[in-house]
Amino acid sequence: MSAKKLLILPGDGIGVEVMAQVRRIIDWLGKRRKIEFDLSEGLIGGSAYDVHGTPLADETLADALAADAVLLGAVGGPKWDNLPFDKKPERGLLKIRKEMGLFANLRPATVFDALVDASTLKPEIVAGLDIMILRELTGGLYFGQPRGIETLPDGSRRGVNTLVYTTEEVRRIGRVAFELARKRNKRVCSVDKANVLECTVLWREEMVKLQREEFPDVELSHMYVDNAAMQLVRNPKQFDVMVTENTFGDILSDCAAMLTGSLGMLPSASLGAADENGRRRALYEPVHGSAPDIAGKDIANPLATILSFAMCLRYSFDMEAEADLIETAVKTVLKGGLRTGDIMQPGKAKVSTTVMGEAVVREL
Amino acid sequence: MSAKKLLILPGDGIGVEVMAQVRRIIDWLGKRRKIEFDLSEGLIGGSAYDVHGTPLADETLADALAADAVLLGAVGGPKWDNLPFDKKPERGLLKIRKEMGLFANLRPATVFDALVDASTLKPEIVAGLDIMILRELTGGLYFGQPRGIETLPDGSRRGVNTLVYTTEEVRRIGRVAFELARKRNKRVCSVDKANVLECTVLWREEMVKLQREEFPDVELSHMYVDNAAMQLVRNPKQFDVMVTENTFGDILSDCAAMLTGSLGMLPSASLGAADENGRRRALYEPVHGSAPDIAGKDIANPLATILSFAMCLRYSFDMEAEADLIETAVKTVLKGGLRTGDIMQPGKAKVSTTVMGEAVVREL
Ligand SMILES: CC(C)[C@H](C(=O)O)[C@@H](O)C(=O)O
Ligand SMILES: CC(C)[C@H](C(=O)O)[C@@H](O)C(=O)O
Repeated sequence: MSAKKLLILPGDGIGVEVMAQVRRIIDWLGKRRKIEFDLSEGLIGGSAYDVHGTPLADETLADALAADAVLLGAVGGPKWDNLPFDKKPERGLLKIRKEMGLFANLRPATVFDALVDASTLKPEIVAGLDIMILRELTGGLYFGQPRGIETLPDGSRRGVNTLVYTTEEVRRIGRVAFELARKRNKRVCSVDKANVLECTVLWREEMVKLQREEFPDVELSHMYVDNAAMQLVRNPKQFDVMVTENTFGDILSDCAAMLTGSLGMLPSASLGAADENGRRRALYEPVHGSAPDIAGKDIANPLATILSFAMCLRYSFDMEAEADLIETAVKTVLKGGLRTGDIMQPGKAKVSTTVMGEAVVREL
Repeated sequence: MSAKKLLILPGDGIGVEVMAQVRRIIDWLGKRRKIEFDLSEGLIGGSAYDVHGTPLADETLADALAADAVLLGAVGGPKWDNLPFDKKPERGLLKIRKEMGLFANLRPATVFDALVDASTLKPEIVAGLDIMILRELTGGLYFGQPRGIETLPDGSRRGVNTLVYTTEEVRRIGRVAFELARKRNKRVCSVDKANVLECTVLWREEMVKLQREEFPDVELSHMYVDNAAMQLVRNPKQFDVMVTENTFGDILSDCAAMLTGSLGMLPSASLGAADENGRRRALYEPVHGSAPDIAGKDIANPLATILSFAMCLRYSFDMEAEADLIETAVKTVLKGGLRTGDIMQPGKAKVSTTVMGEAVVREL
């Protein structure tokens, strides 16, 4: 078997620092477990713009399309805030998602036992939390046409974006939701605003049909997005898999991530359609952003990116054992009392990005 | 001075029960303070559909347009869930907002001292919280054209809604935000998704211009909507006035309301443009919904609706003294230990909707 092709895109801000810690783990896998990757690295976001004049160069995209998996840090920062809309770091991220066809964004919101107290919510509300938010990632308001800003005859302006979903788009994300639920607690909650938005009436109707036709063994419920935001705060443990539209998913998954108090700990996976061998194009990235305010200070938490790499090993490379090893190492390091600043608690030892990365490797 | 015209629309579910308690207070104002209203009552939502075949009859809308203020309970319920889209209870609410031109929805998220422990968040995060979420209410994704579901040649379907804002729509809601901030802590946070949605690029640019031109004394910051959802959970007290698009506001204001643990306590006001006398069309309603699961049981919390009536007295009728009286009565009743089920705490006395309403009147 030839070595798996892994493309690393550190991106901007703390993306670079946290990815350096993943590199240590990759080295360790090579030395100690004789696992070699066909590794390449590229630029995305502001750092790509600085070099190539675009947030995602064609060659980088080609590399991504040829890779077995992509590992991404984060993009964006004030340095690039005033670029024209189509040059912004975020366009690079949106383009790679779209071109790789990564319509399914898995965002687990889990609470690490050692970090229960880091949440702003009461421990009994979040302890043991383990829900999966599945966000549709290549449709909806993010990509719908027409879009743009036009100047009207009287000199005033009008800005437009379009929320659009087709039957097929809803069904394919629905299938991923039901399949995920089958491996979990067999409950899917589909979130929409079907009392106001026709587009999400379609969403709800197609989810209902799909469940009846293909997943009668999985329970399907529906919730309006405003209520879902409430229920996440009131009692997040009521959910198993939550599936929703791109923009709703952006908002709700960030809300859920913050509930856990473990934002710096949360990985995510973005998957495309399965090919004839059941393989999906895949990109893994931490849920947190590029955090420009703390970039370059060696204080960011590398664990979300390390755990994203573990997800990559598990889902894209079938390396269950290695994924388990890494996840266990992370838990042990936390139990040992090491903390980066974002998850610091009284009585624990505050360490740098580098020291945290080294500790995980030592634990391995 | 002729009596103020007040239209009462109890709506569906618990709307009817909670509004009955406001009636007691109106009676008390008549008897004890010699304040008479030109009172009328109408149907909206499912109950209007049952009688008129439409969730908002033309005569009811005419009454609303002629009123000095409208007081609304809540709409919706499973009984009407399978009605065609344009007959649903929610369409009545959306229509009255649109026809009355109520573009500014004020949703305070405040924590009552007596209820700090009812929040799922830690007391230090929410105690003393007092933020104002200002939601644009007659534009954006809720009302944009084109909208609807079309069947494609191959039999599959496509659902569309449109997010649209014009310069003028952004400026008029912006003005309300800055004016509110002037009476508070002079800080406005405008929430958008300007890194992805052009419509909200326009939103941000117009907010920046407006602040420079007309409100240089108020501080303006910007936040992406996903981050705003996080920050509300992480540290809600960082905000003063938050202003945002219709759908974003729907989600964020519900999230913020639930943070307080005082959902059953939160009033809201929806205002139109000021006329030559500075008067605005206005509708007041509780933030909570029609709660069909507990409807008809005399256990709903009437305080949000009572406090909405107090807001009405203050903002539409200049009856500051009476508004203060009612708000103080509510606080005293809470301090005395009475609780409806939603805000029940150990050691307090659980009471019905009616008993809670009577207690407030007695306190008056
Ligand atoms: C950076 C931004 C374009 C992106 C998004 O909105 O999808 C981010 O918020 C995310 O959730 O991955
Ligand atoms: C009932 C529904 C149409 C309404 C809305 O979405 O505006 C409600 O959720 C609200 O927030 O007032």
